[in-house]
Amino acid sequence: MYSEKVMDHFQNPRNVGEMENPSGVGTVGNAKCGDIMRMYLDIDENGIIKEAKFKTFGCGAAVATSSMATELVAGKTVQEALEVTNKAVMEALDGLPPVKVHCSLLAEQAIHAALWDYAQKN
Amino acid sequence: MYSEKVMDHFQNPRNVGEMENPSGVGTVGNAKCGDIMRMYLDIDENGIIKEAKFKTFGCGAAVATSSMATELVAGKTVQEALEVTNKAVMEALDGLPPVKVHCSLLAEQAIHAALWDYAQKN
Ligand code: FES
Repeated sequence: MYSEKVMDHFQNPRNVGEMENPSGVGTVGNAKCGDIMRMYLDIDENGIIKEAKFKTFGCGAAVATSSMATELVAGKTVQEALEVTNKAVMEALDGLPPVKVHCSLLAEQAIHAALWDYAQKN
Repeated sequence: MYSEKVMDHFQNPRNVGEMENPSGVGTVGNAKCGDIMRMYLDIDENGIIKEAKFKTFGCGAAVATSSMATELVAGKTVQEALEVTNKAVMEALDGLPPVKVHCSLLAEQAIHAALWDYAQKN
C-alpha cells in the first residue's frame, strides 16, 4: 500500500522538531481529518532556506510528505521553494494512495504559510 | 483542540514496537482514512495480558488511543480486555474531537483482532 520511500520517511522522519527564532513559521489544519501541522523555516540574508523543521499531529502520510518536503526546500531560494508542490513531493516519495493525497497537502500549505510569514516580516 | 493526555500519549507514546513471538497479533485498516495498525499481545498461561505493543501509520489520535489502550489492557484477563471499549479509552484520554473518533476505533479493533488470533491458536 505504501512505497518504501514513504515507509522510510515515516519511520525515520527527517527534520522533526521546533525552532527557537524561525525566519518564518506556518501552522495549518486539515478540515477533512482534523489534523494540524506546523512548519518552521530558517532563511538566510540571501533568501536561501537553510533549514526546515516540522511538527504534526497528522498520519504517516503527513509525516512522510513533510519529511520529504523539508529536504526538498532546504538549500532553495524562497521563490524556488514556492514551486515545490505537493505533487513534486509525492513523486519524490514514489506516490501515495489516493485516500492519502489530502494528507500531503498539509506539508505544501504549511510551507506556504511559513513563507508568507517570512515575507510579512521582511 | 486536544487534551493534555492526548498530547502526552501522542508525543511520548507507550509500547510502540513489535514482538518476536506474540501470543496474538492483529492488523486492521481504516477504510475512511487508509490508516493501518498492528497490535501484538503477550498473554501468559493464566490468560493474563502481560504486555501489548503496537505499530501504526495513523495520526496522532490513533497513536494516543493505541498508547492508552496498551496500558489499559496490560494486567487484564482476555475477557476483561474485550470489555476495554474505544469509549473507555477516549474517556481515559479526556476525550477526542468528533472528527477523530473514527481514529480511536483502530485501537479497539486491533486489540480484538489480536485476541481473536490468540483464541484461534489456543
Ligand atoms: S489523515 Fe490527517 S493527515 Fe493524514
